[in-house]
Amino acid sequence: MNTNPLLSNTLSHWDGQVRRMTAVFDSFTDEEMYVQVAPGRNRIIYILGHMTAAHDMLLPLLGLGERKYPNLDEFFITHPDSPDTALPMPGELRSYWRDVNAAVSAAFREVPLAGWLERHTMVTPEEFEKEPHRNRFNVLLSRLSHISYHLGQLALVNK
Amino acid sequence: MNTNPLLSNTLSHWDGQVRRMTAVFDSFTDEEMYVQVAPGRNRIIYILGHMTAAHDMLLPLLGLGERKYPNLDEFFITHPDSPDTALPMPGELRSYWRDVNAAVSAAFREVPLAGWLERHTMVTPEEFEKEPHRNRFNVLLSRLSHISYHLGQLALVNK
Repeated sequence: MNTNPLLSNTLSHWDGQVRRMTAVFDSFTDEEMYVQVAPGRNRIIYILGHMTAAHDMLLPLLGLGERKYPNLDEFFITHPDSPDTALPMPGELRSYWRDVNAAVSAAFREVPLAGWLERHTMVTPEEFEKEPHRNRFNVLLSRLSHISYHLGQLALVNK
Repeated sequence: MNTNPLLSNTLSHWDGQVRRMTAVFDSFTDEEMYVQVAPGRNRIIYILGHMTAAHDMLLPLLGLGERKYPNLDEFFITHPDSPDTALPMPGELRSYWRDVNAAVSAAFREVPLAGWLERHTMVTPEEFEKEPHRNRFNVLLSRLSHISYHLGQLALVNK
């Protein structure tokens, strides 16, 4: 559907970055998921849940559907990580991560070129008139950067 | 010159991410530049030099000009960081970083839309025929991800 070359390049880059991140999460055992990326910083499992919630949010933000796992926000968005907090199990989160990304990637393919230039659902028509860069494509670029931001942190963990 | 909205969005995102990274480097004193982002990992100054060299390389890679600071590669590309290695001074590197990014950002604006879909200089015409995604726009996306990768690491330093 997306024959625009800039758009198809960007969507391929998205899929590649999600695959890369999945491979990183898969490289850690369930036990290793409780290691912090740096002293006093987020645990790997927190980043997994945080990324899953962030990608799940793309569905309503881009007007592509309902959240699949809104229950994750309390653990991974609203509150920072703390070693004392009980979190959902690694196996459960790994499965949510795959499920959410499959849904997001499929939904991306259904958006026509013009749709990427429309406002996202957190911008009012009035705001969008003044700030036309606050479109869906910009959300995609911003979430792409978000993947790499946490990939860089995961790369610091000694294996 | 770039009136294509996907391209202008991407170039604005580039400038925004470079500004964000510059603000992070500027938030550290010259002394703090020698702090490691995590135990045994790169020092901040190494990341500054590494990013400068990587962005400088974009000029020949995209066919936009000659390298400005090829001498950086020996310190920041060829060799990993080591606390024993003497590096160029922070003030010098901060100035190179600004200079390189100004040149890259200006050069990006001169590339027409069709130019972004052409092969980059490390791909042969034969390879490009088989792998048309190895174009300049893809290099831009990949270097955008590279910025965020190291931004995520810099965010781990206690201020």
